[in-house]
Amino acid sequence: MRRAGGGGVVLGSARGGFAGEPEAGARVRAPELGALFRPRAVALFGSGDGRDAVARWAGALGARVYAVRGEPGAGVAAVASAGELPGDVDLAVVLGGDALPVVRQLSEFEVPLAVVLGAALSADLLRGGTTRVLGPTGADQFAPLRDDLDGPGVAVVAPTGPQARHLYALQELGVRVSHWALTGGAADLTAADLIAYCAEQPGVGAVACHLGPVHDAPALLRAADHAARHGVPVVALASPTTPVLGAALRQYGVVTVGSPDQLRDTATLLARARPPRAEAVAVWDDGSGSAAAPVAALVRAAGLPAEVRGPGGTPADVLADPAVGVLVCPVPAPHPPHTDRLARALADAAEASDKPVCVIWGSPAGSEAAYRETLLGSSRLVTFRATANCVAALTAYAAHHRRRVAYRSPYEELSDSPSPSPSARKAAPLLRPGHRLSEHAAKQLLRAYGIRVPREQLVTSAAAAVRAAAQVGYPVVMKASAPHLAHRAELGLVRVGLSSASQVRDTYRDLAEIARYERVDLDGVLVCQMVERGVEMALRVVHDPLLGPTVTAGTGGVLAEADPDSAVRVPPFGDGEARAMLDELRVRRLLDGVRGGPPLDVDALVEAVLRVQRIALELGGDLAELAVDPLVVRERGQGAVALGARAVCRADAGD
Amino acid sequence: MRRAGGGGVVLGSARGGFAGEPEAGARVRAPELGALFRPRAVALFGSGDGRDAVARWAGALGARVYAVRGEPGAGVAAVASAGELPGDVDLAVVLGGDALPVVRQLSEFEVPLAVVLGAALSADLLRGGTTRVLGPTGADQFAPLRDDLDGPGVAVVAPTGPQARHLYALQELGVRVSHWALTGGAADLTAADLIAYCAEQPGVGAVACHLGPVHDAPALLRAADHAARHGVPVVALASPTTPVLGAALRQYGVVTVGSPDQLRDTATLLARARPPRAEAVAVWDDGSGSAAAPVAALVRAAGLPAEVRGPGGTPADVLADPAVGVLVCPVPAPHPPHTDRLARALADAAEASDKPVCVIWGSPAGSEAAYRETLLGSSRLVTFRATANCVAALTAYAAHHRRRVAYRSPYEELSDSPSPSPSARKAAPLLRPGHRLSEHAAKQLLRAYGIRVPREQLVTSAAAAVRAAAQVGYPVVMKASAPHLAHRAELGLVRVGLSSASQVRDTYRDLAEIARYERVDLDGVLVCQMVERGVEMALRVVHDPLLGPTVTAGTGGVLAEADPDSAVRVPPFGDGEARAMLDELRVRRLLDGVRGGPPLDVDALVEAVLRVQRIALELGGDLAELAVDPLVVRERGQGAVALGARAVCRADAGD
Repeated sequence: MRRAGGGGVVLGSARGGFAGEPEAGARVRAPELGALFRPRAVALFGSGDGRDAVARWAGALGARVYAVRGEPGAGVAAVASAGELPGDVDLAVVLGGDALPVVRQLSEFEVPLAVVLGAALSADLLRGGTTRVLGPTGADQFAPLRDDLDGPGVAVVAPTGPQARHLYALQELGVRVSHWALTGGAADLTAADLIAYCAEQPGVGAVACHLGPVHDAPALLRAADHAARHGVPVVALASPTTPVLGAALRQYGVVTVGSPDQLRDTATLLARARPPRAEAVAVWDDGSGSAAAPVAALVRAAGLPAEVRGPGGTPADVLADPAVGVLVCPVPAPHPPHTDRLARALADAAEASDKPVCVIWGSPAGSEAAYRETLLGSSRLVTFRATANCVAALTAYAAHHRRRVAYRSPYEELSDSPSPSPSARKAAPLLRPGHRLSEHAAKQLLRAYGIRVPREQLVTSAAAAVRAAAQVGYPVVMKASAPHLAHRAELGLVRVGLSSASQVRDTYRDLAEIARYERVDLDGVLVCQMVERGVEMALRVVHDPLLGPTVTAGTGGVLAEADPDSAVRVPPFGDGEARAMLDELRVRRLLDGVRGGPPLDVDALVEAVLRVQRIALELGGDLAELAVDPLVVRERGQGAVALGARAVCRADAGD
Repeated sequence: MRRAGGGGVVLGSARGGFAGEPEAGARVRAPELGALFRPRAVALFGSGDGRDAVARWAGALGARVYAVRGEPGAGVAAVASAGELPGDVDLAVVLGGDALPVVRQLSEFEVPLAVVLGAALSADLLRGGTTRVLGPTGADQFAPLRDDLDGPGVAVVAPTGPQARHLYALQELGVRVSHWALTGGAADLTAADLIAYCAEQPGVGAVACHLGPVHDAPALLRAADHAARHGVPVVALASPTTPVLGAALRQYGVVTVGSPDQLRDTATLLARARPPRAEAVAVWDDGSGSAAAPVAALVRAAGLPAEVRGPGGTPADVLADPAVGVLVCPVPAPHPPHTDRLARALADAAEASDKPVCVIWGSPAGSEAAYRETLLGSSRLVTFRATANCVAALTAYAAHHRRRVAYRSPYEELSDSPSPSPSARKAAPLLRPGHRLSEHAAKQLLRAYGIRVPREQLVTSAAAAVRAAAQVGYPVVMKASAPHLAHRAELGLVRVGLSSASQVRDTYRDLAEIARYERVDLDGVLVCQMVERGVEMALRVVHDPLLGPTVTAGTGGVLAEADPDSAVRVPPFGDGEARAMLDELRVRRLLDGVRGGPPLDVDALVEAVLRVQRIALELGGDLAELAVDPLVVRERGQGAVALGARAVCRADAGD
C-alpha cells in the first residue's frame, strides 16, 4: 500500500482518496487528475486504434505528442524509448497490447497519469505503481469537446462512450461540457475519484454521472460528500440501483434521476442556476391560455409554490419581483413572429437577471430559429422539451439548494469514540454467532446503548413472577419468552393490565399451560412494567449487501399493519439527517399530536434513532438484524420506550 | 324547449344531448355535426375577417361557397339573399356583426349548422331555433388539416386556437388530425357535444381535449360516458381543475394529463395502439447500455411489468413473443448509421405487428433523417422526446384498456326507483333545513337506508338508561347526545364496557354532571350495544360546487388520525366502481386481514358505499354533509356497523 503520486498527498485507501471504508472525521483530497483533461505533453505507447483521435485531441488542446517507438506523423514526434521522453510529459496513452509493463515503466519515469485503451488490466496488477490510470476505456475518451461555449460547465462521468453519448450531446444544446471521463473497466480510477476531482475544478456547475453497477458504494458516498462540501451538485442516473443506494446517494447530496433525458435536463439547470433567492416559481402566460395554468398546477403538485404571471407586463418585470425565485415559460407550439419576440425577451431577461429562467419549448420540430438560435444560444436560459422534465428539474433544484444550505458532512458528525465503546463491551456477552437473542436479552442490548426499555424481569416460577411484579410495580404485563416465538399475541401468550398478586400467579400458570400445549420451549416469563400508550414506531438495523448496516425508521406495532411506511439512512449521519428521515414518513404528522392532543417526544425519537445508529456502527458486523418494535413515543418530555425488541446475530459475526 | 333539428332526434336537454342533468338509464345520441367538418355547401354571411380562410378551407374540402349579399371571388359565388341559397347548403359561417338575426333566419331555411366568428352571442338568445351553432369562435376554426396522413386520427376539441395549437402540431409529428373544433364562447355547442360526436366517427382513434373552465360538469361526464361506450379514449387537459373533477373524469373513462406535451403524446399512443394483448412492456437494449435498464425501472415504478430485451435478436423477435404487450426503444442520442438502421428496424417491426412500438428519441436536434423520415413517417410507431412522457402514456394506455374492458356505464347501473323511495320517505321527517341532526337521528337516517347501526336507545333518566341497557344487552356503551358536541371523548362523555345496572345508573349521573359543568345542552344519553372492533372506515357525502353530492370512502376513527386517506366518486356508480374506489386506498390491504387474521367483510363495505350513494342521490339536495364515521368493518360474514354518524341539512334544502 502506498500513497498516490503526482498531485499531492491523498488520504485513505489503497490507491487514492475514494476507495475503501470511510474514516471518522477524516478530510480527503481528490486525486490530481488535471492532465487527463488538459495535458501539457502526451506520450503515446502502442499503435492500436485511436492513435489519430488522441493526436487530434491533444493537438486541439495545444499539447505536444510523442510516439514512443512509433512513427512520427501530423503533430506527433517520435522517440525511441520512454527514457527519451521530455520531463514535462504529464499524460501517457497506452493503445492496446499488454499495458501492464508500460504502466510500471511510467511510474519509474514519474508520469503521473495514463489512459489505457482496450487492454485487459486489473486493479491487483496495478498495485505498487505511482501512475494513476484511467481505463481500460475506449477511444471515445478522446472525443473533442467544443471550446466555443460559455457559462458554467457540466462535467461528465460515465463508464463508456455509448452510455455518455446523450451527455456529449449537451453541447448541441449550447451547454459547455467541461470534463469528459469514461472510467471503463475502472482498474484504478473510479467514478468516485473523478466526481471528487471534477467537483473541485473552477467552472464546473454540475457533475453529471451515468453510474454503472456500483462496486464500492462507500467510496462513491465519500466522493458525493466531497462534492457536497464544495457545493457542487452531482446528478446521477444509477442503474441498476436499489432503494437503499438511492436513499444513500440522496443522503449525501446526490440528485438522482430516472432517465437519460432527465439527467441532461436536470444537470443543465443545476449547473446554470445560481442558488434560489426566493421560493416561488412564476409561470409566464403569454396570453394563449393553453399551458401556464396546468404547468403551475404541476409545479404545485411537486410541492413548490407556483403562480401564473402575465400576459400583462414583461418576463423581466416578473424576474425583478423579489418574491419570484424562478421564471418558467411554457411555449406549447411556436407561432412566429409572436414566439420569436417572446424567446428574445426571455433570453434578454435571463441575461439581465441572476435568477434562473426555464423555457418549455413544445414544438415537435425544434428547427425554429427562436429555439435553435435565441434559446439554445443563451448560456443563461435552460430550455426543456417536456413539461415533466422541467418540473422534475425544478424540484431537484429546490431540494438540492435546501439540502446544500443545511448540509453537514456525515463524516464530521461522527464523533470519535473509544473502540470498543463501553456500550459495545456491555453488549458483547449477549451476542452469539448465528443465534437469535431472547426478547429480554435484546432489550438488555438496547439498554446498554441507552435506549429506554420498560422495567422487566425474566422469571421461571409463579412465586418469582409475584415478587417481580411487586418490584416492577402494578399493573404489569406478562409475556411468554422464547427465542423463536411468532404470533405470541395470537396464541394468548401476552397478558396486559394485571393488577394483583393472584392475577399474576394465575397468569403465570396459564402461560405455562398454553406453552406446553403449543409445544413452545419457554425460557421464562417476562414480567414488565405497563407503559402508557403512544404512537408506535419501529427502528431497525438492516444489513444491505452493498452498503452494509443501514438504519430504518417507520411505523411499528399495529400502526405498521395499517400503514407500513419506512425511511432509510446509511450510517454515519447526524441528527439533522435523522429528523429528515422522520420527515419522510407519512405518519410524521401523528408525532405532532394525535386528535388534537399534546405533541409527542420527537427529540426522544431522534435520540433513539441515533442510538440505534450507534449500534449499527459498532455491532453492525455482528448483527444480521435488529428491530426495536414497537418503540412507543410518548408526550413531549416523557420519552420513547422500546416495548419490543428482536435481534439476530450473523453466523459469520465479526467480519 | 325543443329537440335539435338536422341530424335526428336527440334526447335529454334544452338544446341537445349533453347539457343538463343525467337521466337514469337514458340512452343518448350525439348531435349530428358532420357538416362542421366536411360540408357539401357553405353559406357565408357578413364580410368580417376570415372570409378568405373559410373559402380556402371549404374549397380544399370540395364544398361550394355562397356569399350572401357579398362579392363573388375565387371559388365563391354570390347570392342576393338567404332565400336564394341552394337547398343543399349544410353549413353557414357568420363573419362578425349581429349574428342573432342571421342564425334565426338559418333556422327558417333549415340550415342545420352554423359557425359564428367574433360576434357576441348568448345561449339564451339562441333558444327556439333549430340551427346548431359553434362559437362564437375564431378564424382558427378554419385552419386547413392535412389530408396526406393516415392511421387512426386524433379529434381535437378546445376552446380557442391558441389553446389547441400544440394539438394542431400533431400533424408535424405525422399524426392525422381528424376533427378540429374550437368551441369558443360555446353559446350552443359545448365540448361535451363535440366529444360525443367525434367519439362516434369512424377513423377517430382518440379525442384530445383542452378543457377550459367546466361550467356543465354533468354534461361533460355524460359525453365521456358516451365515448367510453363507443370504446374511444378521451384524453383531457383540464385547467383549472379540482381533485373531484379529476376523479369524476377518470371515473367516466377520461384519461387526464397534466401538460400540453403529455396531452399530445398520450393521445397519439392511445389513438394508434390497439388494445394490449399482453401486459409486459419490453424495453429494447441496443447494446449501448445507457437507457434500457433505467427506462425499465421507471416503467416498473409506474406499476407495469417491464423487462429489458436485446441486444441479441431483433425488435421484431421481441414483438412476436406472446408475453410482450408493448415494445419501447429508448435512443438517448442518435449515432448514425447504427441508429438509422435501428429506426428502420423498429418502423418495419411496428408495421408488421399489431402491438404498439414506442421510441424515445433523445436527440436534442431532432433534425436527423432517422427521426423525421423513418420514425415520424410511420403511422404505426409512436415517437416520444422524453422518457417521462412515454412512461406516462404507457401507464394511461394500460389503465385505459383495463377500464375499457370493465367499463359499465354508470347511467345503466342506476336502477330506476320510485321517487321518493320508501327510504327517503322514512328519512324525510328527520331533516330540518339548516339543522344538524343528533347522532341518534343521523343513525336513524342511516338505518332508513339499510346501513347497520348498533342497537341503541336515547334516554333522559337514569332509570330509563337501566331499562334501555337491559333491552340493548350488556355490556353497553353510553354517550352523551347533543347536536353540537365536539371532542365528546376528550370531555369524558363517552363510556364503554358498562356491564351492570349500577354502572349504567352511576354513569348516567356522571355524564349529566359533566354536561352541566361543561354547559352542554344534552338531548339525552345514548345507551348503545357494544360492537366488537374491526377496521374503522368512514363514508361521506360531500357537496362539490361543480358536481353536486359526491361520495367519499376512507379511513375513519383513530385510523384517520394515523393515515388520512380517501377516494371520491360522483354518483351514479355501480359496485365495480365502489370496489375500485376502495382499491385506491392505502388501507385497502388491511381489509384482507389484520396481522394474519381473517379477511374482513369487504362485500358489506361495498354495500354500505352503495347505500350511502343512494342517500347522496335521493337526499343530496337536502344534506350539506353526511358522515358515517367510524364504520366498523368486521370479519367476513359479520358485516359493517356504523358506530358514529353526523348529518347536517342545507339551509336551502330541497334546491
